[in-house]
Order: sequence, then C-alpha cells, then structure tokens
Amino acid sequence: MKIYSIGGYSEVGKNMTVVEIGDDAFIFDMGLYLPPIVEMEEREKTSSKMLGSVGAVPDDYGIEKIRSKVRAIFISHAHLDHVGAVPYLAYKYNAGVFGTPYTIEILRGLAEDLIKEDKDKFNNRLVAVMPNSSYEIKGKQTNYKVEFIHITHSTIQSSIIALHTPEGIIVYANDYKIDNYPVLGLKPNYKALEKIGKEGVKLLIMESLYADEEKKTFSETVARHMVRDVMLGLDKKAVIVTTFSSHIARLKSIVDFGKEMGREVLFFGRSLKRYVSAANEVGLCPFYKDIKILSFKDQMERYFKRVEKDKNKYLVVCTGHQGEPGSVLDRLSKGEFSFKIDKDDNIIFSTRVIPTPINQANRAMLDKRLIKRKARIISDVHVSGHAAREDMRDFMRIIDPAYILPSHAGLQKRSALAELASEEGYKIGNEALLVEDGSVIEI
Amino acid sequence: MKIYSIGGYSEVGKNMTVVEIGDDAFIFDMGLYLPPIVEMEEREKTSSKMLGSVGAVPDDYGIEKIRSKVRAIFISHAHLDHVGAVPYLAYKYNAGVFGTPYTIEILRGLAEDLIKEDKDKFNNRLVAVMPNSSYEIKGKQTNYKVEFIHITHSTIQSSIIALHTPEGIIVYANDYKIDNYPVLGLKPNYKALEKIGKEGVKLLIMESLYADEEKKTFSETVARHMVRDVMLGLDKKAVIVTTFSSHIARLKSIVDFGKEMGREVLFFGRSLKRYVSAANEVGLCPFYKDIKILSFKDQMERYFKRVEKDKNKYLVVCTGHQGEPGSVLDRLSKGEFSFKIDKDDNIIFSTRVIPTPINQANRAMLDKRLIKRKARIISDVHVSGHAAREDMRDFMRIIDPAYILPSHAGLQKRSALAELASEEGYKIGNEALLVEDGSVIEI
Amino acid sequence: MKIYSIGGYSEVGKNMTVVEIGDDAFIFDMGLYLPPIVEMEEREKTSSKMLGSVGAVPDDYGIEKIRSKVRAIFISHAHLDHVGAVPYLAYKYNAGVFGTPYTIEILRGLAEDLIKEDKDKFNNRLVAVMPNSSYEIKGKQTNYKVEFIHITHSTIQSSIIALHTPEGIIVYANDYKIDNYPVLGLKPNYKALEKIGKEGVKLLIMESLYADEEKKTFSETVARHMVRDVMLGLDKKAVIVTTFSSHIARLKSIVDFGKEMGREVLFFGRSLKRYVSAANEVGLCPFYKDIKILSFKDQMERYFKRVEKDKNKYLVVCTGHQGEPGSVLDRLSKGEFSFKIDKDDNIIFSTRVIPTPINQANRAMLDKRLIKRKARIISDVHVSGHAAREDMRDFMRIIDPAYILPSHAGLQKRSALAELASEEGYKIGNEALLVEDGSVIEI
Amino acid sequence: MKIYSIGGYSEVGKNMTVVEIGDDAFIFDMGLYLPPIVEMEEREKTSSKMLGSVGAVPDDYGIEKIRSKVRAIFISHAHLDHVGAVPYLAYKYNAGVFGTPYTIEILRGLAEDLIKEDKDKFNNRLVAVMPNSSYEIKGKQTNYKVEFIHITHSTIQSSIIALHTPEGIIVYANDYKIDNYPVLGLKPNYKALEKIGKEGVKLLIMESLYADEEKKTFSETVARHMVRDVMLGLDKKAVIVTTFSSHIARLKSIVDFGKEMGREVLFFGRSLKRYVSAANEVGLCPFYKDIKILSFKDQMERYFKRVEKDKNKYLVVCTGHQGEPGSVLDRLSKGEFSFKIDKDDNIIFSTRVIPTPINQANRAMLDKRLIKRKARIISDVHVSGHAAREDMRDFMRIIDPAYILPSHAGLQKRSALAELASEEGYKIGNEALLVEDGSVIEI
Repeated sequence: MKIYSIGGYSEVGKNMTVVEIGDDAFIFDMGLYLPPIVEMEEREKTSSKMLGSVGAVPDDYGIEKIRSKVRAIFISHAHLDHVGAVPYLAYKYNAGVFGTPYTIEILRGLAEDLIKEDKDKFNNRLVAVMPNSSYEIKGKQTNYKVEFIHITHSTIQSSIIALHTPEGIIVYANDYKIDNYPVLGLKPNYKALEKIGKEGVKLLIMESLYADEEKKTFSETVARHMVRDVMLGLDKKAVIVTTFSSHIARLKSIVDFGKEMGREVLFFGRSLKRYVSAANEVGLCPFYKDIKILSFKDQMERYFKRVEKDKNKYLVVCTGHQGEPGSVLDRLSKGEFSFKIDKDDNIIFSTRVIPTPINQANRAMLDKRLIKRKARIISDVHVSGHAAREDMRDFMRIIDPAYILPSHAGLQKRSALAELASEEGYKIGNEALLVEDGSVIEI
Repeated sequence: MKIYSIGGYSEVGKNMTVVEIGDDAFIFDMGLYLPPIVEMEEREKTSSKMLGSVGAVPDDYGIEKIRSKVRAIFISHAHLDHVGAVPYLAYKYNAGVFGTPYTIEILRGLAEDLIKEDKDKFNNRLVAVMPNSSYEIKGKQTNYKVEFIHITHSTIQSSIIALHTPEGIIVYANDYKIDNYPVLGLKPNYKALEKIGKEGVKLLIMESLYADEEKKTFSETVARHMVRDVMLGLDKKAVIVTTFSSHIARLKSIVDFGKEMGREVLFFGRSLKRYVSAANEVGLCPFYKDIKILSFKDQMERYFKRVEKDKNKYLVVCTGHQGEPGSVLDRLSKGEFSFKIDKDDNIIFSTRVIPTPINQANRAMLDKRLIKRKARIISDVHVSGHAAREDMRDFMRIIDPAYILPSHAGLQKRSALAELASEEGYKIGNEALLVEDGSVIEI
Repeated sequence: MKIYSIGGYSEVGKNMTVVEIGDDAFIFDMGLYLPPIVEMEEREKTSSKMLGSVGAVPDDYGIEKIRSKVRAIFISHAHLDHVGAVPYLAYKYNAGVFGTPYTIEILRGLAEDLIKEDKDKFNNRLVAVMPNSSYEIKGKQTNYKVEFIHITHSTIQSSIIALHTPEGIIVYANDYKIDNYPVLGLKPNYKALEKIGKEGVKLLIMESLYADEEKKTFSETVARHMVRDVMLGLDKKAVIVTTFSSHIARLKSIVDFGKEMGREVLFFGRSLKRYVSAANEVGLCPFYKDIKILSFKDQMERYFKRVEKDKNKYLVVCTGHQGEPGSVLDRLSKGEFSFKIDKDDNIIFSTRVIPTPINQANRAMLDKRLIKRKARIISDVHVSGHAAREDMRDFMRIIDPAYILPSHAGLQKRSALAELASEEGYKIGNEALLVEDGSVIEI
Repeated sequence: MKIYSIGGYSEVGKNMTVVEIGDDAFIFDMGLYLPPIVEMEEREKTSSKMLGSVGAVPDDYGIEKIRSKVRAIFISHAHLDHVGAVPYLAYKYNAGVFGTPYTIEILRGLAEDLIKEDKDKFNNRLVAVMPNSSYEIKGKQTNYKVEFIHITHSTIQSSIIALHTPEGIIVYANDYKIDNYPVLGLKPNYKALEKIGKEGVKLLIMESLYADEEKKTFSETVARHMVRDVMLGLDKKAVIVTTFSSHIARLKSIVDFGKEMGREVLFFGRSLKRYVSAANEVGLCPFYKDIKILSFKDQMERYFKRVEKDKNKYLVVCTGHQGEPGSVLDRLSKGEFSFKIDKDDNIIFSTRVIPTPINQANRAMLDKRLIKRKARIISDVHVSGHAAREDMRDFMRIIDPAYILPSHAGLQKRSALAELASEEGYKIGNEALLVEDGSVIEI
C-alpha cells in the first residue's frame, strides 16, 4: 500500500491524501489553502488558474502516473479546506465524488459559482452517502467498501471515512471532535468506530491541530451556554453576531437566544446563505423558518434600513468573523451600509481568530474601526471544533491502527501528534509517520 | 477626602486602601502578596516578621500619622490577597474587622495558625455582617453606614463594600465578576448597586485584572458544563481533580459529577479543609455530607491506601492546582503517598495557571512528573472569577462614580482600566486616577 | 504653564505636543500616524482630507482657542511620525517651522508631493537651525531661546529641543538613543545636556518605546559589525539589502561592505531617493558618489535588467523592509521586475518588524513569497534607534527635570516609563504625568 | 549501519548517539540533562544513582546487547550536556574517552568531584586529541580514523567529529556556530570540512536549536562590541558581570574592558574556577594573569569585603547568569556576603535566559531581589553560540551528506531542521531522519 501526501502536510489547509493499493487508488479530500484567497481581492472571479498560481489548490503532480487508477474521491465534510478544490481538480480523475448529503449539496453550490471554462470541465458524478451508511466501490480486481461514520465537528454531517481494503481498513479522520453533548445531531458513532477498531485498521490518517494542548475539547453545549450568557445579558442597542457560516449548531444557539430576546433574526451575507440553505435543503436546519437570509446588495440594504430605525428589534447575524475584507461585518465597520454601527452597539464574535498573520491583521484593523465607532466588542464566545490531545488519545485507542499518519498541519505541529502516538506505543518513523506535501510512503 | 494606596497598586496582591475623611479613616482589605510565600519553604512557621521581610505584608508606614483615626477595617472577601494580612497588621489599629460571615470564619482560622507572639497581639473585634445588610460605624463627629452588597466571585459571600460618607459614597469593588447564572448563591444584587449609583458615588475603587480583554467573563454555569463534560467522559482508572480550595461553587460541581460517576468523593489537603469547613460552618456547603475531608498525614495515608486498591471507586479532590511545592498533588506526583499515580490515571486541573514565573515553573515541573508516570492531564477546565472589560463597563455605568481608582495590579495593567474609564468619559489623571503603592491623593 | 497632549499619547505615531506659557504657545513635532497609511492603497494621491479621515493627522481641535498664540513649530527630526503632518496642518498657524537642515530638507520634499489644494495653503516659513545652535523666538511680552541639541538616533541631525522660558526650560526628547560610538556623526552633546540640566529644567517630554526593557540599546557600531558579518559571508548570487530609508548611518555601512565585496551599489525606490538625496543636499551623505539611485519605473527596469544578467556584480539596496505593499522588495517578491529573485539569492533585512499586526502580516506574506522563490532570508541584522530603560534613566538624571511627561505610545507602554520615573523619585500623577491624546494639564 | 539515538532526541540535553558498524560501535557524547539538576538542592553530593533517578543521565539500556562492541567514546566539547555524564556512564564500556585537551581537562575535574563509589568505577582511558588532528581506533576487523575538526562555539576547543568508516564518513556536529571573526582562536576549519564533504559523508548528525530562525548567528566580535559598549559606559558604583563560565572568549572581552575601565578583575565561583583554570592548564587563557579567581567561602568573603569598601575599584565577574539558586549572584542578591548590592550598582547579564520555566522563574526572582536593592540591570549583552537556519544551510552544503539526523532537541524543534533539509533536497523520513530518545534506525 502506497500513501501519497498531496496536501495538508506542509500547511493547515488544502487537504488531499491518496492511497494506492495494487491497481486501485482512492483520494481523500480535495481542499483549498485559504490564506492566499483571503489576500486576493475579487473572490468572485476566481478561476482554477488563478487559484493554482497562488498555491491554493493541491499540487497533484505526484500522482500523475497513477491517475487512471483512481476509483473514487471521498470528502470528509463541507469545509472549504477539505472540499473546496474538488471543482477545480476532480475533472482530472475518472471517478465519482462521495460525501454526505450536506457536503454534496455544498459542493453543488460551489460548482455553480465556477467560471464557464472550469464549469465545463467539472463533470464528475456526485454521490451523496448517508451518514453511518456504506457504499461499494468497484476496483479493478476487487471491490471496496467505504463507510461514512458520523462524527461531531463544527459543521454538520462530518464523517470519519473507513475504507475496507484487502490489506486492512484505512481510516480517514480529518477533521473531528469528540462531543458527547452535541447541540445538533448525534454523538459520535462509537459503536461503528469500535467495530472497525476490532476488525483491524491498517492506517489511521488523522488531523493534528491541537495535539499539543493537554486538554479535552469541550462540547458544543458549553459554547451554547457561553452564547446564552452573553446574549441574554444584553438588552438595548444593536446586537450583531458573527460566526463560522457552516457552523449550523452554533447558528441554532444564536437564533434560539435571539428569539428569547424577542428580536427578529436576520442573516446577512453570501456565505451564510450558502451554508444555511444547503443545511435546509438536506433537512438539517431547524431554525430555517425563524430567520430571513439576505445576500444581495439591495436586499441587504433594504433590511439594514429597518435595523437602523429599530436597532433593538433585530438580531443581526453576519459574515466577517475573521475580519475578512469584503465581508458584511467589514463593510459595516466601514460604514458602507445604511445601518451605521454606533455607540454601545454590541458585536459578538462567536469564533476565535484563526492564528495566521493575515487574519490577525484583518481582525485588529476591524476592531480598531469598531472601537472608533464606540461599539462594544465581545470576543471568543467559542469552543473549538477540533479534538485536543486527550480526545486524540481516546480516538487512537478506539481505532487501534497499525500505522498513524498525522495530517492537516506543518511538520512542527504534526510532530506533537507523533509524540502522542509515541506515548501510545507507536515508534516515530516506523509506525507514526511524518511526511510532507508531495511525499510517498509504502507500508 | 484623602486616599492612601497602601498595597495592590504595584503588584497583584496585598490589597489595602485607606480613605481618610476629616477625623476618620477606614481601611479596605488587608491582603498578602503571595508569590514570596510560595517560594518560602516551611509555610507553617510563618510569622509576621518573616512575612514582612519578604514583602508579603502591606507596608502601612504611610498612614502612621493617621493611625488613630482608623475606625474600621472592611474585608471584601475570603481570599488571602484580601484578608490574609489582617492577623499580622490589624493589631496596630484600634478598630473592628468587618466582613461577611464566611470571610470572618476564614479569618478566625488564619488567626489560629499564628505563632504565639503574633497571636497575642491580634485582638481586634471581628464583626460578621450578613451579605446585603449594612452596619453603622461611629466616627468622631459623624456616623458612617457601611453596606456589604452581594456580588459573584470565585468564592462565596463576596461583597461590594459601599461606605456612605458626608462627602458621598465610596464603593470598593475588589474582586468581582458579573454572573447571572451562578451555580451557588444569588446573582449580583443589582438593585442595591443601582440604588447607590443613583444616590451619588464619589469614588469607585475597582480591580483591573482583565480590563484589557475585550470579553465578557462567562458564568460559573459554563464552568459547570465544562466539568461535567470532562468528568462524565471518564470511566476507569483514578480521577483526581484540583481547583481553588475556596471555590465552593466549583467544588459543588465536582462533587455532583463525582457522585453521578458513582464514586466516593474524598478531599485531601489542609487548605481544602479550611475553606470547606468554614463554608459548612456558615451553612453554605451543600455537599458537606457527601464528602470526606482528610488533612492529617496519617488520615490521608489511610485513605490513599484504599484509593490505591480501588482506583475507580473514588474521586480524589486535592490541593496543588498551581503545582505548589508541598501540596497534595505535588507530593502525589513525587510518589510520596501509598497511592501511586500511574498509567492512564486522570488529573483534571479545574483552574488556570496564574501567570507568574514561579507558578509557571512549578506547574511545568509538576506536569513533567505526572507525564513520566503516564498520567493523563486535562487542563484549563475553568472560567475566571474576575470581570472582563465589557463587564467592567457595565459595572462602571451602574455605579456612575465621580472618580475611579483602578486597583489590584501594577501600573501597566491598571492603565487598561483607566483607558476604559476614559472611553466612558473619565479624564485620565483627573477623574481616572493612576497611583502606585504608597501614594496619597486628595479628591 | 499648560501642556496639550495633541498626539502620540494614545498611539505610537502622530507626535504633537503644545506648550502654552502666558500669551505664547509652541508646538513640538507634527507627525503622521502611519498604520492607516500603510493600509491605503494609492499613496501618491494622499490629500489632507484623506489623511484626516483615516486619523493619520493629529487632531488639533483642542488648541483652537489658543491658535493665535502659537509662535513656532519645532520639529525634532526627519521621521514621518514627527514631521509628516506639517504640510497638512502647519498652515493653520502663523508660525515658522524650525528644524535642523536635514529635517527642513525632508520637509521641503514632502511639500513638493502635495496635491495642489494643500500646496497652496502651506506657506509657513521654514527655518533650518544648525545642530547645537540656538535661535531666538519673539513672544508677545518676552523672547524665548530654543536650542537644537545634537542627539543620536536612527536618522541624522536629530535633536533634543530645549526651550528656555521664564518658567524654566522645557526639554523635548522624542526620539533618541544614547550612542557613544556612532558610525556617522558625533556622540550626544552631553555638555549641552548637562548644562541645561544644571540651569533648571521644568518639564521633560520624553519617548517611552522601550522603557520596559531592562537593557542598554547598543551602539550603531554593533549594527555595523552585524552587517559586516552577514555581508562578507556571502559571495555568489544576488545580494539584496533593505533598511529604513532615512537611516543614513546604516546605509553607509551597507555601502561600505558592498564595495568591500567588490559589487556595484544600486539604490532602488522613491523613499530611498528622498532621504539619501536630502542627506547629500546638506553634505551628510559620504557615500553618495559610490552609489546609483533609481526611482522611476523605467530607470529601475533598465538597471534590474543588468542585475538579472550579472547578479554577483551588484548590491541591491531597496525599499520594503516592513514588507510594505508597493515597495520595491514587495514587487520583486511578486516577480514584477525584469530581475527575478531565485534560488539562493540573499535577502538581508537590516531592520526588525515594527510590531503592528499589519506589518507582521505584510512581512509574513513577503517572506512566504521569497521562500517560494527559494531565496535565503537573513532577518534582524539590526540595532534599535531608541533608548532602553537604563539609557532613559541616565538621560533623566542628566536633565533632572521637575516634571516628566512620557510620550510616544499608548498608556500601557508609557506607564513603564512612569514607573522608571517613580524609581527615580518622581511621584506618578504628581510629577510623572500620564495623559492621553487630547488632554490638557497645568504644571 | 545502525544508529541508536540514546539521548538528546526528546529534550535539549543529555546528548548521546551510538553508531554500530558491523562488529564495532562508537559513542558520540555522553551529556547530562541539566534542568532536574538545577532543581536539586545540594549539588555537591550528586551520585550517579541520584542523577539517574531524576533522569539526568542518558538511558543506555537500548545498547546493552552491543556494549562489548563499543570501541571509543568521542566527546565534541566541554559543555555538561555533552561531557557531563561520562563520569557516571563510561565505566560500562571498555573504551577510551576522546576529546580535545580542554574537554579532557574539564572531564578530569568532573571526575575529581565524584563520590567515592562512582570514582572507583570510572577508569576509562582519557585521550586528549589536538584540534585538527586525527586518531586511529582499532576495530575488530578494521581500523577507523577519527578527526577532531576545529569549529567555533561558545567554549574553546569545540570539534566537529568525523569518523571514517568503511561505509562512509560519519560527521557529528553538535554543537557549533559559524564564526568568521572569533575573538579567541581560529575560524572554523573550512578546508577540512570541505575535504570530508568531497570524500563522501554518509551521515551528518547535527544540532537543531535555532533551525527555525531565519537568520545568521552573529560573530563573537559583535558580542565583544556589545560588552564594550555597555561596560565603558559605566563609571561609578559596583560593576558585576555574569556569563557562561565556560565561555572563555566572552570572559576575555569582559576582562579586557574591565582593565580598560581601570578596575581590578575578580572572578567569583566554583564553576568559573573550573573552566578558567582548565583553559589556563591547556594554555588557552590569555587573561589568566590579569585576574584573581576566588571560590572558597572564606576567600570570597575576604575579597567581597574589599569590594564593599571600594566598589569602583573592582570588576566582579561571578556565576549565576541563569539565576541558579546557590550561585554567587543569587547569594549576592540575598545579601549573604559582606559586599551588599545597593542603589545604582550595575548587574550585566552577558547571556540570555535559556528558555525553560525553571530558568525563567529563577531569573525573574533574582531580578526582583536586585531591583529591590535598586541595582541597575542590563540584560541580553549576548550573541548565541549556536548556528541559525542560514548557517545550518551553509554547513549542510559543505558536508553534503547522504543522510541527516537532526539532534539536540525535542521532535518539534528538530522538525524545523528536517524542513530545512527538505528544502535542500533531503526527503523527510527517507534521508532526513526524525527519531526520538531510544530509537534505532538502519541506513
């Protein structure tokens, strides 16, 4: 069995890993590297060429020779660093793209935004697989069963992917948290995880982000209490909340407490529209009827005029949690809408700053503008969607693989996961594998 | 009106502020500076002389001339950096010491530990004042009413102290948080706070610790959910939890979930015994019947032998959350008891490292020893007991004082609070006052 | 005597302090706040209106009523955060602008870049005062002597300004370092400083930047040895150095070692041209004959073509040390010139990242692009131009003022200098004064 | 060829690597892990048992089976984390210990301090090899040539060790810097390094400490100018300098400028005595005649009395640069000598704080005590003795090995060197090898 670490091994982002077994090969995730995109000014016109030139798309040159062997592309969940490159890259492979219904729905939306040239190319079959179900993939000589096992994360219908091969099971766990009290949906499917753990896992590919934090990541229920605490403590003036657009559970809490405050809930921004509509499409947006989603300029303006008149009647939920230039909150801070943020309006960041220099700069400049308007800022109303060290240890023990391949970060961060694996008896360099983008290893 | 900033204005700790009005003077808090005490090796023999020589006791030289004017010593709450110096310093003043019943109970306990020489001196009258009640103090020419207004903090029966004087009300708010969902006891007494705000506050003395964090401090309910999430996720092996000994609400959560796990709850350590027994004494320890408290060496050993035999039958709650040398957890990490921490035993820190170099070093060394024993460490299961910037703004607005005196930190930290005051219309240097230990200002 | 802290007391930048004595008033510095300018995209068109709207120009509203009293505007040195706002603001005052010849020369250059509307207004008399000489200013009832005392800093002809008034001397020390081994020019004029110290200084206004660093700032000679060490260690491939354009001494070292390497030295960029030409104009650019300065696009291209052909024959000195978008190094990193940075070309940053989020982001992105081109990056070949704590203590002792006003930073940074003053016997709030932008104090 | 990574691969310290080639094996370095020793209170009684129990001695269990194959123990230089474990561990091997004369001299001194039990065991032959010379080691079937190639570092007579084997050359470069302007001794022996590079190096074992710093480490000449700048700027009051005791070049600069100040130079402390006397023993202490070294309590007291009387006649050089409890500076700060540090005495740290929590706490507490005495502190008068990223790249290119094994740090730090190697064309996991303490790899 050969593993090609195409992307996500030298950076946080553009996840893509390929496994070759005899005559067949399988791709896990095809994500974008987002920082250069944040830098780019006019997002709407992004073409594959443009994205490629700034290094946002995984470089799949290393698997050129086995291109014809690829039988399927498996997508773990709906975040752009996992699914975002599919529309630009999948066309090179004669293979279907598999994901849960929500992931596939998001993928369809992304495809619609393509420029004509890219759209014409992208014709892969898109296959929605229900969480906790499996699918049979035809290989050249043998068939493969792939399972999409339900896991908790900061978006819905995230999966641990288990590919059953003649050489043992390959488990792809990128990204996940272990949440026993989720706000929306079910707990992790421990039963299924334990079952494959017992059947015999050859390789576990697993995210490394917080492997160096001696912690357990708290449940989304903790975040819900944080949101409640902050929101119900406010009464007058505007209340504006921003969070990850794909974080449907968090949005549910925000909407619930917005209603408890007696405010009408308005969502502003294209990205919110995309993720929330898709959630509704697959029947997983319980608050859909309670909100209005506004994304076109005129539409937003019309509603912002109302907000301006009766600030304390509305809850504004909008894009811009990382201070992204062009986001609704960014433009609000610059006074580009009819609704003008002013003294004592409340800005709640139900997120944390993802620690890249560009995000930190964007957020710092956003804060400065908000403070100049005398707004009140409440930051870090948030619990992460990624497992911490002790969750990872538990997970590793359940899966009990022969090999572990830390993924989704540069070498220095991943080595913390390798050290954890070493504590659990995996020898670094032998069974705990450290590679970089573009490596090939055989196990 | 003259204000003497005796202690807590050049460091975090040894809080002591004196207000002189005509012929009368009043002391607010008499706390210890704890870092040099952590360094000292044999705590039990601490005498006033020893503590004085290392700078742990406030230096009250600056008020020598007005010593005879002091009519009362008001203590805000039971933490050592607020009450700890009373047994060593109060004897110099012919004045009663006033606090809530819990605070006074703790003070009595501290007094019992004094060496004979100090004990003989300390004869001040100790007056327990119920939360949300007031007391009349006789001045030379006029009488003064002091109110102890209930506030939430990381120990029970904490107070905002309001002293009514002919020149206006003085409000002492050091320390506090704004918790609308407390786990034990009531919400802040907003009514009383608003009332004095309307009557006219001359001076607000207020803690500054997190004035630079653009946040709201979450409720203790959030911490309770964190504790639940972590504890109920564990099943086998030893479970050891450490937290602030005076944090009765946190301890309640820990005990509750320990019982839900079906474990017998054992408390180990002198400091836990002190604070928990005192809470019980004043009728505020709802879990007292559910636990065993062990503090003598033999007693602890007897119970640790049982724990060693049936690790999964007990929940161990112990001292040592900052890695203090000599604490129970410190000694467990060194293998000094019959119960030996080993592979997969769980150590939960329901606290955060108070960021001084000595704490950080102690904790780092503790962790290293625990990891060597292959224990699992879960850190930061905690929510702070101190208000953050936006809480402070709300509080300031309720009290609406003429002057603000930031306290409880060095100048750099306090200046963040001064800047907040400036945002609220107080001119720095005029109404927002920045002093240092040993200053005198007149307003 | 009244002091108006117009700018540089709530941020690092836009320095401007006004002193009013009876019927006369004097302005010290009129600088820009640079971060919003870095954000702005098309610098060349900057008008006073634009700069004002983003908060880059000091807000002098607070001295409107005493506008007619202003007799002179003193500029300490040629950096933009001290002189940059003169062309936009000075026209409001019927007063000459005084500075050393280099400072005035830079000011003239800035004035030439103004848009017509601003240019028409700016008609103040510009007076060049030689370092270590004095000038008589006519007041309403009395005359004032102003001295420009030579001090070392990261540009040439920097001055400590001493204004002799009937109420005592006012000393303005913003910015400076204490360098006993300068690479260019003389040591600080200790004699003059000691003299005014003995005559009796009422007020010392002094920069605070590194007041919290328990250090002495090393001499520029140390930086020269760093530059030598790095440059002479290179032999092949391109060598590109970037540093502060106004740092003539550093540029001298770079040119000297460039020549020692046997390379032809080329300067690229408008800002370099401005500062170096001005230095030559006043006879203080000893290396002027050894370099070529290129600033127009065509000119730069012509020379970059030569560099591309014979990389090892040239030393490229260019703008962009903070990764500023649009700077020469920024554009080189993006491949916008004929000369393409590639494998093993050397980029030397003879500077440090000024720690604002936008600089950090710009630099991080610049580095990423350079690394992608496989360039070698050598950072931090630098010694600061600002005094550290122990230098400040020495300086304070020489000047021995009655009052100290820390300037040139937000309150938190300035309070470190206040604490130093407190160690030296100045009471914070009494003689060590902490204000903010827009305060007025009387002493 | 098998490589055993015994120590220094999971921590900074206790360096020990073993290479096995057929019937023969060789040990490179046998160092101590110092942090637990700093924690221990009574250093003088340290026995092998004690050191072993706290994990200070490398765990050589992994090479038990090949113990009889060990033909030689090579020591790179005189620092304790490289040579310090020899007296406790070497006795297990029937092999000589090889090092430069200075290293061997230091080793002899260490041996004298052993408790009897350990002393009786330690009987290995000690062989002093001149820098830039080689030695023939007898193997079972073949002979091996070992070269000690001169390299610059923060102590004298440091070596790159090159072992010529039938399977290619093994190069051990742990620790080193690339200093072209050393203050004492010669530049690195580039000629010899280039020669082995051309002959064919199989494996390069190399330190990783600053692999993530995009810099070149400056020459010791830069440090000399820093020292000069600081020292010659002082005139009155006591001057106390502390630095690494083994840093003979730095000490030379300090002595030189002490003499230039017209002060008598006194060295205080056992560790200084050890390293300076040994340097003199091997003829490499040019300033030996200019100083007095005092290490016994009485002797120190006698001289401290003189210093107390005439503070400005002496330069005090003493131990304690990391704030080590029990060091001379630590005891001075506590007032344990006749010479009392007081107002305006100068403490120069010609060192930086080695960033471990225990060092940081020790130094913070030391500083606090010094500040309480109103001493002036000047920190960071220092240039590192370790190569930075760009030096490492140069070094790698000269040696041009087939394999690279980053050493001397935990996995996270070492992975930065692995990434550098990857930039230079070594595939991580294949030719750039990441292991941990106790690994075995075959190449």
